[in-house]
Amino acid sequence: MPSPIVISLDAMGGDHGPPVVVGGVREFIRRHGAEGLHFQLHGDEAAISAEVARFRLDASIIDIRHTDKVVAMDEKPAQAMRRGKGSSLWNAIEAVKTGQAGAVVSGGNTGALMAISKLVLRMSAEALERPAIVAPWPTLRGVTAVLDVGANVESDARQLIQFAIMGEAYHRAVNGVKNPVIGVLNVGSEDMKGHEDVREAHAILRDNKLGLTYHGFVEGDDIAKGTVDVIVTDGFTGNIALKTAEGTARFISTLLQDALKSSFQSKIGALIALPALQAMRRRIDPNAINGGPLLGLNGIVVKSHGGADAKGFASAIRVAVDLARSDYLDKVGANLGRLGEVIPASASTGGDNGDKVQ
Amino acid sequence: MPSPIVISLDAMGGDHGPPVVVGGVREFIRRHGAEGLHFQLHGDEAAISAEVARFRLDASIIDIRHTDKVVAMDEKPAQAMRRGKGSSLWNAIEAVKTGQAGAVVSGGNTGALMAISKLVLRMSAEALERPAIVAPWPTLRGVTAVLDVGANVESDARQLIQFAIMGEAYHRAVNGVKNPVIGVLNVGSEDMKGHEDVREAHAILRDNKLGLTYHGFVEGDDIAKGTVDVIVTDGFTGNIALKTAEGTARFISTLLQDALKSSFQSKIGALIALPALQAMRRRIDPNAINGGPLLGLNGIVVKSHGGADAKGFASAIRVAVDLARSDYLDKVGANLGRLGEVIPASASTGGDNGDKVQ
Repeated sequence: MPSPIVISLDAMGGDHGPPVVVGGVREFIRRHGAEGLHFQLHGDEAAISAEVARFRLDASIIDIRHTDKVVAMDEKPAQAMRRGKGSSLWNAIEAVKTGQAGAVVSGGNTGALMAISKLVLRMSAEALERPAIVAPWPTLRGVTAVLDVGANVESDARQLIQFAIMGEAYHRAVNGVKNPVIGVLNVGSEDMKGHEDVREAHAILRDNKLGLTYHGFVEGDDIAKGTVDVIVTDGFTGNIALKTAEGTARFISTLLQDALKSSFQSKIGALIALPALQAMRRRIDPNAINGGPLLGLNGIVVKSHGGADAKGFASAIRVAVDLARSDYLDKVGANLGRLGEVIPASASTGGDNGDKVQ
Repeated sequence: MPSPIVISLDAMGGDHGPPVVVGGVREFIRRHGAEGLHFQLHGDEAAISAEVARFRLDASIIDIRHTDKVVAMDEKPAQAMRRGKGSSLWNAIEAVKTGQAGAVVSGGNTGALMAISKLVLRMSAEALERPAIVAPWPTLRGVTAVLDVGANVESDARQLIQFAIMGEAYHRAVNGVKNPVIGVLNVGSEDMKGHEDVREAHAILRDNKLGLTYHGFVEGDDIAKGTVDVIVTDGFTGNIALKTAEGTARFISTLLQDALKSSFQSKIGALIALPALQAMRRRIDPNAINGGPLLGLNGIVVKSHGGADAKGFASAIRVAVDLARSDYLDKVGANLGRLGEVIPASASTGGDNGDKVQ
């Protein structure tokens, strides 16, 4: 029997801590089983034990690692790096570094998670400034991986290509698509559209020396259409696109609720259509599509929404398990290694990356 | 009696030409009356006359200016500039230049409209590279003006400030808000978030030497919340945010329709709730919020969606009429004139604006 894959969890992260993290483990096991898996939970032992007992989890696959120290949700990344050592977040990441765990999941402070992950695990390629965050985006055809959605404020052509390599390997590992099709987010589809960085990335991807399947430029409305499997963009645009979509979904959902409550007649109609409306809501439920991996690190780190519930946390665990079981890290490493052959020196203007996460 | 305001219309623009443009005039008059207004219609006289007769419009307020020449919807801007002279689009804009008309509306080719408007009318400030396009964005509180949504691919701090000045004056003129509140679109709300251009624009707006009401940074989900009245961003991000929101709205609308058709029971429910659902749809109907002005020109130019129907075209005419009746151009001119006093030389690094509209 092969030794189990260990998933390291920051039990104190997120808005709710142990109840959601331990509840997430229970929900994950209910959905997918626990075969070949162990869970290492970092944080307050008493609180975690109580939840493990409450959820009647099999104690033989749960390993609690006590610490009193917690990184606050509003702590600045620089502060978290200086003071975070020994915290549940730090220890959970450290377990991946030392090889005790195959992946880590945290619902904690994104900036601190990124900063400590980078410090502890280090980037897998020199040119990478910081991890890229992937958003699994629900579309009419399934899920599209959009990256970066917030880690890198400015991204040159070389970074966009790195995002393409990492996103492609990620999508294959997690969503089981053999040859994910890649697109570069832009303001139009013609070669001359957009700024220099997207045009340079477009030209390199079109040349196809990296063996990636490239569609071309895509526009904002292509994301939800599911035109391609992986969409690369700088973290500034990606973050704003993601939050704009979330805002739009909330806006329409509010209008819909108001409309269905606006009269006695519409209330009756809504009641009758309720099962269908609930099924629809599940398809755009952020909890069902939770789990944004931080790509580009020497190790697998998955960010869960801070506000996720146990079902949401279970989805994030699934992303971590799928990545840990796959050859994702090897494949990405090999392709990033080939970047130097493919990208001409003129494209690697990088280095001056004016990002700020503080 | 004061002389009437003349609205110049490119009758051949858009996907449908004269039926929608003349139908739009009829619909505008039905909604708002024609008092103090004249309409100058540029294009094929026979086709326009037939529509004017069909819609029984009062011929005394309609002035048809014949031309055979039309700029195609897929014509490149550079080509349109070289060959477009004498076309319905060109002549409609020229009428504003010569003072015959107070504003022009076209549903034609956006790139050609921008290029010819800039050539014929010229920019109202030297530092402006090309017009900014405003998107009137429906929100929970009404409408927010978002600019630029596609004309300028990169925008430095000085341009973002110009967008703020122009957007504020526009919002006051069209939406009747006395002191529109401005926000700068960013990936977070803290001062240190984002790249240099947004932080510099933020610092200048916070200093408040231009007399604008400034809220601070806003994020993608603030757009649909209606957190502020005017949101400024570079045209790359703005265009992608707008199209992402349109794609999200279409995605949810498709899911909703599928859900309501998924069973006999849900079909009954949908039928009963139909009036409420239709009222909701009207609130996000792009035709009801049609009309994106091109700001920064010496004259008022309003872009209508190419696919708009007569109701949509009427909305675009309303935007043009409101701007033409207001002191928008004077106010913007005065504020842009004060930019030099307010923005330190270090901020005006502009000039190297790598935008492409081709």
